[in-house]
Amino acid sequence: MAVTLKEIRAAAVRIAPYIVRTPMLRLRSLDAYLGCEVWVKAECMQTTGAFKLRGAMNRVLSLSREELARGVVAASSGNHGKALAYTAKMLGTKAVIVLPDTAAKVKEDMIRALGAEIVKCGVTERFEVAERVCRERGAVLVPPFNDEGVMAGQGTAGLEIMEQCPELDAVVVPVSGGGLIGGVAAAVKGLSPGTKVYGAEPAALPRYTASLAAGRPVQVEKKSTVADALVSQIPGSVCFPYAASLADGFADVDEAYILRGMKLLLMEGKLLCEPSSAIGIGAVLQGLLPVKPGEKVCFLVSGGSVSFEQLGMLENITV
Amino acid sequence: MAVTLKEIRAAAVRIAPYIVRTPMLRLRSLDAYLGCEVWVKAECMQTTGAFKLRGAMNRVLSLSREELARGVVAASSGNHGKALAYTAKMLGTKAVIVLPDTAAKVKEDMIRALGAEIVKCGVTERFEVAERVCRERGAVLVPPFNDEGVMAGQGTAGLEIMEQCPELDAVVVPVSGGGLIGGVAAAVKGLSPGTKVYGAEPAALPRYTASLAAGRPVQVEKKSTVADALVSQIPGSVCFPYAASLADGFADVDEAYILRGMKLLLMEGKLLCEPSSAIGIGAVLQGLLPVKPGEKVCFLVSGGSVSFEQLGMLENITV
Repeated sequence: MAVTLKEIRAAAVRIAPYIVRTPMLRLRSLDAYLGCEVWVKAECMQTTGAFKLRGAMNRVLSLSREELARGVVAASSGNHGKALAYTAKMLGTKAVIVLPDTAAKVKEDMIRALGAEIVKCGVTERFEVAERVCRERGAVLVPPFNDEGVMAGQGTAGLEIMEQCPELDAVVVPVSGGGLIGGVAAAVKGLSPGTKVYGAEPAALPRYTASLAAGRPVQVEKKSTVADALVSQIPGSVCFPYAASLADGFADVDEAYILRGMKLLLMEGKLLCEPSSAIGIGAVLQGLLPVKPGEKVCFLVSGGSVSFEQLGMLENITV
Repeated sequence: MAVTLKEIRAAAVRIAPYIVRTPMLRLRSLDAYLGCEVWVKAECMQTTGAFKLRGAMNRVLSLSREELARGVVAASSGNHGKALAYTAKMLGTKAVIVLPDTAAKVKEDMIRALGAEIVKCGVTERFEVAERVCRERGAVLVPPFNDEGVMAGQGTAGLEIMEQCPELDAVVVPVSGGGLIGGVAAAVKGLSPGTKVYGAEPAALPRYTASLAAGRPVQVEKKSTVADALVSQIPGSVCFPYAASLADGFADVDEAYILRGMKLLLMEGKLLCEPSSAIGIGAVLQGLLPVKPGEKVCFLVSGGSVSFEQLGMLENITV
């Protein structure tokens, strides 16, 4: 399969019983800060707390009954793991989730509460460990992003966005491996070729701008970021062609602007998200995206997995 | 005039150019905590941060040109003052806002930024002071709640609620003087007599349960509450007959449950509100309202005027 509008529409029908059609919020209080008409797709209100359920659910619903019975495995920085654990629970199979040591504790607790088994390892070896678990148990690997079934599932967020506000000028999407932006761009461009799609990634891990410059997926140096759901060092090989050909640009956002975006969304927009999800707002605050007054710009707020204690990191941030 | 469905509909047309039709959010993540289908009317996303703009705008739009030119005055614990300051700015007149010493600084700063003059005094003398300012300047007093024009404006929130989810079983409304619940109950009962309307007030200031027991508005002892927008000691004389005859019950909510409601809405619902606005959720957490699984219950989240520093009060609260 390819990630086409037709496949994304099929995914939307497939996953509809299990996911929330999240609200599209018009947040006028942010217009003056961002210099455009601000819309927010609130995937922080998605079941299991993030858009990841769309992709995981679509992929697992495409398995045969025999495959499903052998269980599913994921390597995940948290939200994908939670989504797959929930998917397994809903569909009556078991999940093993391989987590990097850097994952937020709130995410780990939630995965355990959903009945999945957790295996921990270093962030760079997580895919290897997941493959080993699959071999050992005969289970099916569900990749967090580098898979066209997963990407088609994530693309359903783009379908909803364009149904909820068809006249958008731009959509800004957080980027890690590229599964979300690949799926969303396929949906948005399929429905409205004139709507811009921008990606926002941490400046600490500029894997998309580096790869676009090189013309192929290249690996960037491992660095930490407050955007703990955006830690891929290299674009997914499956995602890269979609993201590279469909997106209109990528912004590399500094840590301080990611946190400013999160605080602005919380204090003025009244919406709580995880740092990774505020990166698009941060990109505009940092002046990295060409948005204009009067333009309708949708920020895909990808998830809300954050603990109360983590809010302390916003203490000295000025919006 | 009386606060009728017809008057509320007229108010809705009058104020439409100036207010936001706020979202009605279906927050599934709260269902398990509250034991019902949770809907939230997000007035924390209203312009100026609270429902108060509806009433102030409706009242001021009903003034003659001569009255308007003399300016407007309000005594307010904050959100009404901010709403009237914004109203005056939009309609090209001046506002004087009388604030009690207890008002949150974030509210005072916002009022000043909207170009209004601020006069401060003790919380019990605020209405006297406002009347004196009116006499001295020939300006028009716009009461925060005890006025049928203001109540009809607040009732527009109830109209929207029933348009956005016509099959609601119950609506839960924060209560202070009674302007909001009076207006909302008139709208809700006018459109759907079977939908219950409940009020929630701080247990520290049980002016409605005390007054209903007495059969007339009685004044309760002055006490402090984290719900700093719900500090009236006595029901409004104009509001009381509407609230008493239309509401199906009132809950007196403990301080700890108000804060638990606020933290639950923030961490699980991903929505930031001020403590006063979480009191309805607190009422259900405390077991004070007869909601049942499967029932659609709307919590009117009345405002979002809270500073980052104030979030510290949620630190040791367990949801």
